[in-house]
Amino acid sequence: MGIRSSRDVRRASRFEVLHQIYALGSASRSSLASASGLSTPTVATVVSELLDWGVIGEVCTEDSGGGRPRARLAVNPARGFVVGVDVSETYVQTDVFDLALQPRASDRQALDTGHNHPGDVIDRIERGVGAVLGTAGVPRADVVGIGVSVPGRIDRAGGVSVFAPNFAWRQVPFIELLSPRLPLPLYLDNPLKASTMAELWFGAGRDARDLAVVTLGTGVGAGFAVGGTLVRGTGNAAGEWGHSTVVIDGRPCRCGNRGCLEAYVGAPGIMRQLRERVPGSPLLRPDSQTATITALAEALAAGDPVAEAVLRQTARYLGVGIGTLVNMLDPAVVVLGGWVTALLGRWLVPAATALAARHTFAPAFHSVRFETSALTGNPISLGAGIFALEGFLAGLGVSTSRDPARHTAAIATTTPPAV
Amino acid sequence: MGIRSSRDVRRASRFEVLHQIYALGSASRSSLASASGLSTPTVATVVSELLDWGVIGEVCTEDSGGGRPRARLAVNPARGFVVGVDVSETYVQTDVFDLALQPRASDRQALDTGHNHPGDVIDRIERGVGAVLGTAGVPRADVVGIGVSVPGRIDRAGGVSVFAPNFAWRQVPFIELLSPRLPLPLYLDNPLKASTMAELWFGAGRDARDLAVVTLGTGVGAGFAVGGTLVRGTGNAAGEWGHSTVVIDGRPCRCGNRGCLEAYVGAPGIMRQLRERVPGSPLLRPDSQTATITALAEALAAGDPVAEAVLRQTARYLGVGIGTLVNMLDPAVVVLGGWVTALLGRWLVPAATALAARHTFAPAFHSVRFETSALTGNPISLGAGIFALEGFLAGLGVSTSRDPARHTAAIATTTPPAV
Repeated sequence: MGIRSSRDVRRASRFEVLHQIYALGSASRSSLASASGLSTPTVATVVSELLDWGVIGEVCTEDSGGGRPRARLAVNPARGFVVGVDVSETYVQTDVFDLALQPRASDRQALDTGHNHPGDVIDRIERGVGAVLGTAGVPRADVVGIGVSVPGRIDRAGGVSVFAPNFAWRQVPFIELLSPRLPLPLYLDNPLKASTMAELWFGAGRDARDLAVVTLGTGVGAGFAVGGTLVRGTGNAAGEWGHSTVVIDGRPCRCGNRGCLEAYVGAPGIMRQLRERVPGSPLLRPDSQTATITALAEALAAGDPVAEAVLRQTARYLGVGIGTLVNMLDPAVVVLGGWVTALLGRWLVPAATALAARHTFAPAFHSVRFETSALTGNPISLGAGIFALEGFLAGLGVSTSRDPARHTAAIATTTPPAV
Repeated sequence: MGIRSSRDVRRASRFEVLHQIYALGSASRSSLASASGLSTPTVATVVSELLDWGVIGEVCTEDSGGGRPRARLAVNPARGFVVGVDVSETYVQTDVFDLALQPRASDRQALDTGHNHPGDVIDRIERGVGAVLGTAGVPRADVVGIGVSVPGRIDRAGGVSVFAPNFAWRQVPFIELLSPRLPLPLYLDNPLKASTMAELWFGAGRDARDLAVVTLGTGVGAGFAVGGTLVRGTGNAAGEWGHSTVVIDGRPCRCGNRGCLEAYVGAPGIMRQLRERVPGSPLLRPDSQTATITALAEALAAGDPVAEAVLRQTARYLGVGIGTLVNMLDPAVVVLGGWVTALLGRWLVPAATALAARHTFAPAFHSVRFETSALTGNPISLGAGIFALEGFLAGLGVSTSRDPARHTAAIATTTPPAV
């Protein structure tokens, strides 16, 4: 039985059309119909709504080869602003974007394991939002929404962090706690979903509809898109690939289980491999994951054999995990990102993807492409901003009971908003 | 950029409407719109086409509470027949269905490891089709398509078995070989896709849109549905969960890798566990997987400690694999099927799903439901028949340039076909 309502379908069409306008830069109605696969009347309806609401504008007209000139549509950046917040294990990054999703200002505040209670995080978000709006000169009233990414399992509808093992949070009503400090539309999700959304809109998703987006940092996970749509799972818990078992009865993981991939290839897991190999290694900075992984990268660049052995071991486990992911979903592209990838990817990605072939049913492996994320800026705060944009679009208009024909006619007479 | 064309979208709508008619038994246009999430005009267009082609009929009218009486629509079973063929490692099963997907006749022929060349299989399919059409009294001209499921990786468009490790087939142009013997529309896919399609239409998919369908037999794999749609992957290779590594550097697998889940929980893997534990076990029937697994089931029913130890070991590995699947996709339901599940499921399913909790990120696990397949008959031949139906529907009509308004008007004057 259907769970989607007509309203869901209408919102999905609206979001898909806007997504294509971002992907194409600017676009005519007919190119939007062919790029989105939606019918021409549906595109006309959605475009008319977006014009009415000032979300997009007609930037110019182009010759259509004899017929009526065709309008090119683009996002109206001045229509409003969205904020995206990436709460990671080691920092809180806040970015403000205009409605064309161009970054306007950014702020990053350190977070450490002694200061990651919900209150500490909320303080940093509040300061971060104040800082970026100040820097960009954006009045708070022009912010249409704030998206926040927090690691772990998220109940989106309730705005609750259900389980964040790396923070030891359980059932934290995050949005309820944040909203008195930032009384604006707030959206909560996790970094796997956010980074996948960013890749779908601005990265590998521009030419592939089946993606896996792997994040390697303190935590490890993956987001998936199938047919151009983010895979959430029934309880928004899809993507916990990092908690798949790679070694039965293996190392304890912070999630409470044993032998999880994250326990081997997350930053603390890599540190543990280094410690087990050379207990007093000068590469180890027990107080800082970032400093240790940076030291490991420098040692790799210098050809240090201990660093190379640790890398090989990490690549071995990562190869198993990537093999599983390719076996199960047969994506066109696997994008690797996260701060550990940024520091070690030059060595880790080729080694792990070569080893993945030993763990993959042959034909799927040969068709998959591996990439490190090519997005500039932070894909997680960008993805969180996209969630805020999605929420804003979903809330525009409450009824579309107007009939499509009247809507189509209305387009021709709409005055383009100033862009 | 979009890869879907408008035609794809139109075909998908057609298929979705028909799917809902099957799910609901019979349905009014308005109930189809709400169940499918498609717009009322789209449903009206699709229904009109399906009526024109005789695929569905108006079976009766119902009072709509003051307005014009509403027609109830149902599939017209006499419109044609589809055949579904399940080529497994141990048999070839052929079923003929009417267009309401009710089975009319079935045939099963044994296949053994000495006789699984493509020619052997094709002989059995040809004989099977002849047998079921004869039994059901269906003229060959009334068959609108034949769907064939073959294990392993399938190139659907080319009709090629790309890689079937359990048959040692590589690049077998199966449809090209079969079509001179059965000159009818032929469709090729694999059992993971077929059984998932059958569950989506007639099993767990009737009340859940995110499914994993696990098949345990000689081979091991899983099919997925996300948002009610079968996940195929970029190269139709999604679902090779059985070739995910559960033991690094573990047992060799028939796919050429080591430590695959299938090497531990497929029927030959279970036989190997029995052999390793008690080399001369009386439960072992070296020539027959089916006889061995049947003997194991009988021994479990009698409380045999060797059988119990083999079951625990199998459940251990299966639990790891199920944990990975739940972690990655967060399905609403995991359906377990296949002949090994049919024989051992009573013991294996509760043991494996209990152990899976140790390998699953906690919150996702607590929301998933585990079921053994409740479909009567063979879900693989049924799914193969659904693929033939899908192909038949996709081929009906080449252009739908008629305008929706005219189409809507046409519905009222259509004479219902005899049902």
